[in-house]
Amino acid sequence: MFKKKPAYNVAIVGATGAVGSQMIEVLEERKFPVERLYPLASSRSASGTVSFRGQEVPVQVLTQDSFAGIDLALFSAGSDISKEFAPIAVQKGAIVIDNSAAWRMDPQVPLVVPEVNPHDLSRHQGLIANPNCSTIQMVVALKPLHDQVRIKRVVVTTFQSVSGTGREAMDELLDQSKALLNFQSPQPTVYPHRIAFNCLPHIDEFLASGYTKEEMKLVHETRKIMGDNSIQITATTVRVPVYIGHSESVNIETERALTANEARALLSAAPGVVVYDDPAHGLYPMPMDVVGKDEVYVGRIREDESIPNGLNLWIVADNLKKGAALNAVQIAELLVG
Amino acid sequence: MFKKKPAYNVAIVGATGAVGSQMIEVLEERKFPVERLYPLASSRSASGTVSFRGQEVPVQVLTQDSFAGIDLALFSAGSDISKEFAPIAVQKGAIVIDNSAAWRMDPQVPLVVPEVNPHDLSRHQGLIANPNCSTIQMVVALKPLHDQVRIKRVVVTTFQSVSGTGREAMDELLDQSKALLNFQSPQPTVYPHRIAFNCLPHIDEFLASGYTKEEMKLVHETRKIMGDNSIQITATTVRVPVYIGHSESVNIETERALTANEARALLSAAPGVVVYDDPAHGLYPMPMDVVGKDEVYVGRIREDESIPNGLNLWIVADNLKKGAALNAVQIAELLVG
Repeated sequence: MFKKKPAYNVAIVGATGAVGSQMIEVLEERKFPVERLYPLASSRSASGTVSFRGQEVPVQVLTQDSFAGIDLALFSAGSDISKEFAPIAVQKGAIVIDNSAAWRMDPQVPLVVPEVNPHDLSRHQGLIANPNCSTIQMVVALKPLHDQVRIKRVVVTTFQSVSGTGREAMDELLDQSKALLNFQSPQPTVYPHRIAFNCLPHIDEFLASGYTKEEMKLVHETRKIMGDNSIQITATTVRVPVYIGHSESVNIETERALTANEARALLSAAPGVVVYDDPAHGLYPMPMDVVGKDEVYVGRIREDESIPNGLNLWIVADNLKKGAALNAVQIAELLVG
Repeated sequence: MFKKKPAYNVAIVGATGAVGSQMIEVLEERKFPVERLYPLASSRSASGTVSFRGQEVPVQVLTQDSFAGIDLALFSAGSDISKEFAPIAVQKGAIVIDNSAAWRMDPQVPLVVPEVNPHDLSRHQGLIANPNCSTIQMVVALKPLHDQVRIKRVVVTTFQSVSGTGREAMDELLDQSKALLNFQSPQPTVYPHRIAFNCLPHIDEFLASGYTKEEMKLVHETRKIMGDNSIQITATTVRVPVYIGHSESVNIETERALTANEARALLSAAPGVVVYDDPAHGLYPMPMDVVGKDEVYVGRIREDESIPNGLNLWIVADNLKKGAALNAVQIAELLVG
């Protein structure tokens, strides 16, 4: 499906954003065979250059004509841009890996986490969806447990960093923190309420059910990636004043019993997972420690004594990296590999 | 049991701490009949004065002789101080309301949240325990639901502010935030890791089970206060970079069905609870909004579709006030009332 070449022309749509710039870094870091890089952005953001392999590459304005000769297009510029331009890119012959929510639940579009469902890639029709950050790190940790003892139910509460929203949100946390430390009262602009020194139980839009879209992504995307619609999931997603790194408190109920030690052994052997679980020595995953890391960190693994077969886990990952850019590049590696 | 008087001599043990100073404020705010206030602190902290009803009252060093003539002693100076001095105060004739963990699970000692189990007060023997902050706000919100549909299981994840640790932790968050915003790398002193722009899944000491003492307080104290050892509870407690206000993501499974609307109606009618649940208009509880508030705020009330009878709730309260000082003063009010 992907015509084998020594190297590929790669477009990055949203190249100046928090995820887009990570995508460029990860392509370089992992020595992805890039023939030429095409950083693209909307007219609002298309200025300056991006650094790639020691060169400054000018950012171009995204247009309908941007995809001629492009082999691979990584999109991370929001759902509206993806809805409009991803089909154009595919029509021009590019394979698109889209980081927005636009196509994730489309039955025609594979939704892929390479450690979990690489086989789903084979049925792509030019467009592959990259899952939401909070879903990716959860399924990487849950898949090895599901394979062994079948997960019946998940109760997840997230602690999500502001970089998941984008650069402006990172600036807002910075500006608000500075203002508060200088006894000023900052007005929120990106978020509906202050994020500095606060917690917002509100990520993405609210639905009539009272859940947010972010919460329902954890439900629907997890089932699609795990290939099991019988997994019951309920989620509460919360924004916290952290720059990078999402944390998740995950309670699972399994069909068969699994001790905490057995879970540690399974997770230690699983691809893309680091078990970081020695609380007596102060070792547990924290957002500050996972910045720039490729793996999903799992700790605080405990048997849940409130039900017969239950476990609690604390799952932390770099939301820009494994939660977005790295996962997209890993998909690209599978395509060319 | 409490000799009725027009006004009472009240000692505050730990008067210069985050909770102790709140206790003094709350006594004044609620016009508690204080004959004379005796602010006490360890020799390390006993300096200066505290303000009470427009007067500056000198802080005295806590000794075995501090309790002569005291009617009521509110303790908030840690478990070691309580273990040593609370029995002395009781022996001298004072009634002690102790905010430490020292006596909470003692079967002889009532553990009281006035909205939940005021009847337990009647069996006190001079010593009454004030529950842990994270427990108080949860049981205030869960009791009205438990009475109606019986709660079988609780899965709770907390977002706890640094003021729960005390003044030095508040200073640490302030200092670390300033340092990071000035591109410095602060060293942690109060917490084992950096708290600024980070999340620590670690509150109080770790037990052999992998749970922390804080997590087990939520299990054991909730059962004792609710008077129902059949409630199954599992907890994950997390420190977040917030100054004041604890948030809790609480998932409950009930014996009988309850819709989100029915839960809202029950909670709206419950003492000490404010339902703040109109997410379409940006209304949900947040720590920044509950500072200084007496009530427990509940929002994000949703039916959990992953089980037949489940609900999700987001519960936020001022941990220094309802979570500590106010609850202690409310107990004192019941005693003298």
